[in-house]
Amino acid sequence: MTRLDYHAAGVDYDALDAFKRYCQQAGAATRAALGPLGLSEPAAVRGESSYLIEAADSYLAHVEEALGTKILVADAMYRLTGKSFYRNVAIDDVSTIVNDLSTSGAQPISVSMYLATGDAAYLADSVRAKDLAEGFAEGCRQAGAAWGGGETQVLKGIVSPETLVLGGSAVGVIAPKGRRILGDVQSGDAIICLASSGVQTNGLTLCRAIADRLPQGYLTPLADGRTYGESLLDASVIYSRFITECANRGVRLHYAAHITGHGWRKLMRLDAPLVYRVRKLPVAQPVFAAIAKAAGLDDREMYGTFNMGAGLAAYVAPADVDATLAVAKAHGYDAWLAGEVREEAGRKAVVLEQLKVEFEGESLNIR
Amino acid sequence: MTRLDYHAAGVDYDALDAFKRYCQQAGAATRAALGPLGLSEPAAVRGESSYLIEAADSYLAHVEEALGTKILVADAMYRLTGKSFYRNVAIDDVSTIVNDLSTSGAQPISVSMYLATGDAAYLADSVRAKDLAEGFAEGCRQAGAAWGGGETQVLKGIVSPETLVLGGSAVGVIAPKGRRILGDVQSGDAIICLASSGVQTNGLTLCRAIADRLPQGYLTPLADGRTYGESLLDASVIYSRFITECANRGVRLHYAAHITGHGWRKLMRLDAPLVYRVRKLPVAQPVFAAIAKAAGLDDREMYGTFNMGAGLAAYVAPADVDATLAVAKAHGYDAWLAGEVREEAGRKAVVLEQLKVEFEGESLNIR
Repeated sequence: MTRLDYHAAGVDYDALDAFKRYCQQAGAATRAALGPLGLSEPAAVRGESSYLIEAADSYLAHVEEALGTKILVADAMYRLTGKSFYRNVAIDDVSTIVNDLSTSGAQPISVSMYLATGDAAYLADSVRAKDLAEGFAEGCRQAGAAWGGGETQVLKGIVSPETLVLGGSAVGVIAPKGRRILGDVQSGDAIICLASSGVQTNGLTLCRAIADRLPQGYLTPLADGRTYGESLLDASVIYSRFITECANRGVRLHYAAHITGHGWRKLMRLDAPLVYRVRKLPVAQPVFAAIAKAAGLDDREMYGTFNMGAGLAAYVAPADVDATLAVAKAHGYDAWLAGEVREEAGRKAVVLEQLKVEFEGESLNIR
Repeated sequence: MTRLDYHAAGVDYDALDAFKRYCQQAGAATRAALGPLGLSEPAAVRGESSYLIEAADSYLAHVEEALGTKILVADAMYRLTGKSFYRNVAIDDVSTIVNDLSTSGAQPISVSMYLATGDAAYLADSVRAKDLAEGFAEGCRQAGAAWGGGETQVLKGIVSPETLVLGGSAVGVIAPKGRRILGDVQSGDAIICLASSGVQTNGLTLCRAIADRLPQGYLTPLADGRTYGESLLDASVIYSRFITECANRGVRLHYAAHITGHGWRKLMRLDAPLVYRVRKLPVAQPVFAAIAKAAGLDDREMYGTFNMGAGLAAYVAPADVDATLAVAKAHGYDAWLAGEVREEAGRKAVVLEQLKVEFEGESLNIR
């Protein structure tokens, strides 16, 4: 069987790079607007997951994000089974927005929805419409934020009439300023991982291509008896409360990496030349074994693309490990001590010791 | 010729109403999240153009918006003439976001872009890509805000490969809290209008349908010698600086209505039973005469749909008229005293005296 990877599945990130560079260049010049308002932009924030603005006694955080193609899985499953998973994809949409925002240490306070479809009839289905609305509200509740409005558009000729674009934005606050997560990871720090619910929101283009290779497509049963499609559609975990509660209890996170696109390579998102030694991997959900088998991907490719059971990595001083795990447990997160950060002669890498998989720094180029 | 109005052009807003109601119901319940954060939601803010969150000494403002189908006009003109108007539509995108935000009195501080296309090749055109980036930055500059990141997605199977979805969000601040625009319009207030640049961002579905009726389509010359397509694509005016500078100079705006969808009916956006008597209309740009003629629409329909040359209406005490006009002039806006607000036995209406066109309150139902 032909190997199926991200490029074969039709996602060519390279072609977008020039556009993103133009945006970065044009965007950087606009920071001059902040001075006259008594505000400023923290150094190097434009490479981070959340944009920040520094005020006298707080930071404001602002993130725009969107769900991507996962909605097509929910559409297919609704057609095939009559079961609506739209509540879950709306939670996913909130998760993509607030999980990025929270990695700065910000508490999300307002989340807005953006929704566009090619035909209003798509939303005339009341099960779908209610589930989308209730899921978005549930995502906001899990994040501890208010749903602060949004925009719904019918874009005939732009968006397909049979699906939708689902995105949105969040505003958050870091106050007092000392609660900002600074990225000051150092040798000896512990790596704490928080479990994911499955694929969450990344790698869905590949996951959809795989459905065509499975004997019964989305209805193919997995090792646990659930179908492939249903497994893909488990709602993402929202990590905001964990991050906020760590700050509330005085547990200082040196950094928090949201494990999404690029999988475990995201652990080395910071520039610092450090080695992230992972000694305890989670048990990956059955959906990942199905993906690996159908796509013909090895461990290196799977862990370099998917979260494989862990959706957030947080770095803390060794003395804070127990307190961090206690916060996670108290708020219903499955968390564990996964490994440690090491200074190793200037090498930058993520090492998954159990699998003997090593990702060098140059394999991640996202900033 | 068949009359062409909004429903004939394929926009059925009614079909979206149920979904929006579900969202409003589910969203309203989430405001409970703000209390534990020491924040609150101002009364009745969910009907307004900008969501607000009240803190101890300021309000935060948050808006999610998007451009809609105007991008299709830019795509068509690029194919027909080779001339890129993408810089202008990116300014339009920023205008839809920040003009709504500013009507609360908020100064926009960060604006984020959302962009999705069906094929990365659409952005591989460097003229288009650069113009989109530079236009978005220019919009931010005009608004006095920083461009705080964003999200770019390729959504194959969801968005057309030949165009894009362009949206985004803004965060703003009202500080001190007394700068909030409260909607406390009263009988005797003056109506100040600020000029638009043409159709700006609303009514584009109808404008596109009209292109099919014109002898040379988008290339049809108008009374001023410019083409229909070029005229549609004049960049929108961004009113943020006017609103901010009024506050800076101590001019209190009782309300500011962004004249977009529903045209001049938007002047009575507030619930109050008042009559808005307009005595001086602007000279509408030639593009509006072309639309009226091609679509067979009378003054009532045109002024009830389009801005007809005025993009913002601000209400001030009579004593503040000169100061308001001076602020507008100092910052390059074309503004004039357009009329006054009257208490008339509980009637709610917009009266365009020169045209003998009257819109009663029930003709606007958008809150």
